Amino acid sequence: MTTNIVELEQITEPTSQQIIDENRDYTLFSWSVQNAANPVHLKRAEGVYFWDGDDNRWLDFSSQLINMNVGHQHPKVLNAIKKQVDELCFAGPSFATEPRGTLGKKLAEVTGLAKSFFTLGGSEANENAIKIARLYTGRNKIITRYRSYHGATMGSMTASGDPRRWPVEPGMPGVVRAFDPYCYRCPFGQKVESCHRECVSHIEEIIRMEGPDNIAAILVEGITGSNGLLIPPDDYYPKLRALCDRYGILLIDDEVMSGFGRTGMWLATQHYGIKPDIVTAAKGLTSGYMPLGTVIVSAPIAEYFETHMLYGGLTYSGHPVSCAAANANLAVYEEESIFENVETQGAYLTHRLNSIEQRFACVGDVRSIGLFSVIELVKDKVTREPLAPFNGTSPEMGKLAAYLKSQHLYAFTRFNMLWVCPPLIITQEQLGNGLDIIEEGLRIVDATLAS
Amino acid sequence: MTTNIVELEQITEPTSQQIIDENRDYTLFSWSVQNAANPVHLKRAEGVYFWDGDDNRWLDFSSQLINMNVGHQHPKVLNAIKKQVDELCFAGPSFATEPRGTLGKKLAEVTGLAKSFFTLGGSEANENAIKIARLYTGRNKIITRYRSYHGATMGSMTASGDPRRWPVEPGMPGVVRAFDPYCYRCPFGQKVESCHRECVSHIEEIIRMEGPDNIAAILVEGITGSNGLLIPPDDYYPKLRALCDRYGILLIDDEVMSGFGRTGMWLATQHYGIKPDIVTAAKGLTSGYMPLGTVIVSAPIAEYFETHMLYGGLTYSGHPVSCAAANANLAVYEEESIFENVETQGAYLTHRLNSIEQRFACVGDVRSIGLFSVIELVKDKVTREPLAPFNGTSPEMGKLAAYLKSQHLYAFTRFNMLWVCPPLIITQEQLGNGLDIIEEGLRIVDATLAS
Repeated sequence: MTTNIVELEQITEPTSQQIIDENRDYTLFSWSVQNAANPVHLKRAEGVYFWDGDDNRWLDFSSQLINMNVGHQHPKVLNAIKKQVDELCFAGPSFATEPRGTLGKKLAEVTGLAKSFFTLGGSEANENAIKIARLYTGRNKIITRYRSYHGATMGSMTASGDPRRWPVEPGMPGVVRAFDPYCYRCPFGQKVESCHRECVSHIEEIIRMEGPDNIAAILVEGITGSNGLLIPPDDYYPKLRALCDRYGILLIDDEVMSGFGRTGMWLATQHYGIKPDIVTAAKGLTSGYMPLGTVIVSAPIAEYFETHMLYGGLTYSGHPVSCAAANANLAVYEEESIFENVETQGAYLTHRLNSIEQRFACVGDVRSIGLFSVIELVKDKVTREPLAPFNGTSPEMGKLAAYLKSQHLYAFTRFNMLWVCPPLIITQEQLGNGLDIIEEGLRIVDATLAS
Repeated sequence: MTTNIVELEQITEPTSQQIIDENRDYTLFSWSVQNAANPVHLKRAEGVYFWDGDDNRWLDFSSQLINMNVGHQHPKVLNAIKKQVDELCFAGPSFATEPRGTLGKKLAEVTGLAKSFFTLGGSEANENAIKIARLYTGRNKIITRYRSYHGATMGSMTASGDPRRWPVEPGMPGVVRAFDPYCYRCPFGQKVESCHRECVSHIEEIIRMEGPDNIAAILVEGITGSNGLLIPPDDYYPKLRALCDRYGILLIDDEVMSGFGRTGMWLATQHYGIKPDIVTAAKGLTSGYMPLGTVIVSAPIAEYFETHMLYGGLTYSGHPVSCAAANANLAVYEEESIFENVETQGAYLTHRLNSIEQRFACVGDVRSIGLFSVIELVKDKVTREPLAPFNGTSPEMGKLAAYLKSQHLYAFTRFNMLWVCPPLIITQEQLGNGLDIIEEGLRIVDATLAS
């Protein structure tokens, strides 16, 4: 009898090592060589922190995958999910449900657009945005940017410039790529003060060469996320919007990472006073509590599909629990003045990053908007030689990442960059603590470079 | 004060018409001309039934989109979701969590395969299965079948034969299509008793003509679902498996619709004694309570990715709540002997369908396995002329669908077919009641044809 109870406890309460082993033995990890995957057991979480199996507390400077905007385990979102689960956990996509209609209405209100088509994540949102643009315009080509990531399904992956597309090419036909507004390393050899916004004007040259009547849409991330956090000059979006209007091309704004408060606004493009024709979103829409993505279309596009078939669908379009989670999450943004906190803490973050840029030899550039920021590392401030090559890493970057991990600071590093994207509820003290750890890591890099 | 309370109540308790209007005004419906979408408000649900806004009780003969295998609002699944939400609602895909490891282990056990890569639905599962097959084999082409549906994202849509791919072509390069084991309308002009299984042998001819060393995988639905519920001859799968082995081609088994008890087994292909190299699943994996898909790979494929990069990922891979819902849902299958019920009720369903085939002039063929079945309608039993053309409808099919709806029987009709796919918990009485309504509908069709 005693033995049975012990066995039962072993079954219901596995150790962290057992959990890690089962994850390793029976599941595959994203974007990884599996024998190099060294997963941490994420045991519990709250606010800006999570705890591993050894009860170490980690400060989440990446909001997991830049999605937990309201932080971990927010009671209002949890309660809304549980309430919806009890009321109605599932309805097929052809049915009307209360949370679906409520969410559609709210998204129209905050974006100034008309109707939402619900998916489960960003990849599917961009897939459907591309389909919708092609069906609506009757044109095929999609212009996207090299330093971009729009998702991992075949259409979204091909639309991405990210090197993660290389191993699965050739992908979807019809994608044409343009350069990015990457002012620190301007592909046109310009300086932002004296340039002619070649980052936009070269797209017009591409349009002419590809044939304006063949181009359905220009698809861009509101602010480029995992390819370098590239913040465009203030007049970039007005010029891009004008270019689209000139040629009858739709502007698709991928706000999967940059939307829903990350920059302090509902959409990053709202900082620039323009309105896209289509917005895609995911991540911050529910803060990841439930999987959800959306494609939000303008009134003329919605009107077109009143009398034309929308060729798109999925079993879980408009999943009631996902929509309920989003409704609660969006309410938290407003009820708890989250965007105001982004503005306040974002100002502090910018101040600290500017100081970091001045004080560390290995920091070439810092870019931030709201609580969306990156530190770009270099071997040399003058030559701007990256601390790790494009699509690669380096001992120095490895050392930095290892140090942050040793201090239980969870932050995203890629190539020669380090992202700082904490939950939007973070306090100045918490933000300061994390930045102090990063400064110590940068000191180690500077010492390595100097030696 | 009173006015405020009334206003508050109006906000929190919208009428069904208001809910339908908001869904119509602010959200887009899948695979629809929007002004023809006439959504029912799905208000509450339990077991095999759901209720609309006028409190009409509907019998769900389609398990929503053939996903609610354990029926609506099963308390064990609801409780498991709520428990996980309280414990840990989200962890990024690079972390180990208890429900993820537990689910991976269980899926390896029931499929005889090795490791799971978790997605959110079937489309993404097939996208990743194709990627994995290409990376593992170093080959590019994928053979799929004409009458098939594998999802709506660009890779899965192109892999589908379904006409829903037409408006978005050209899609992903490298797809080669073969014919189906559609014995009622054999594309080779054969009869099942006397054929030479040309449905397999012609695939070998395709392999020779396309170059065996170019072909990564043959991707098939375990049992073809929304393109006609095509049940292959008993030796089809052993022959197809042998063909794959002969040329080093992977067999990808899409069990999104046919898996997890729908046919009375974990996988439909288990009826035929063969093991695929890769299985994809979704729908019945969680019964749709939470969005989840999976790609389950064999031990050699898992081993390959120990030392090679898996180029695939998504923010919500291994979502803890989705995994917890799946664990509870799979436990229900076993604890409540669901597959045994599928066998019992499936035998009754087959009996009733055979009787229907004999008694109605408009029924050309019936096909069923477990609780997965279709009635194929014809204008004439001898000529087998379909009651509606491929990719179209007809007044007679419209009349049948309208009748079923008027009787609050929710069933899926497409082209010249009517599906009967109720939740797997259905009783004989409930099944009988629904089939009685269908018989009345078929009587109306017979009368129309005779007049």
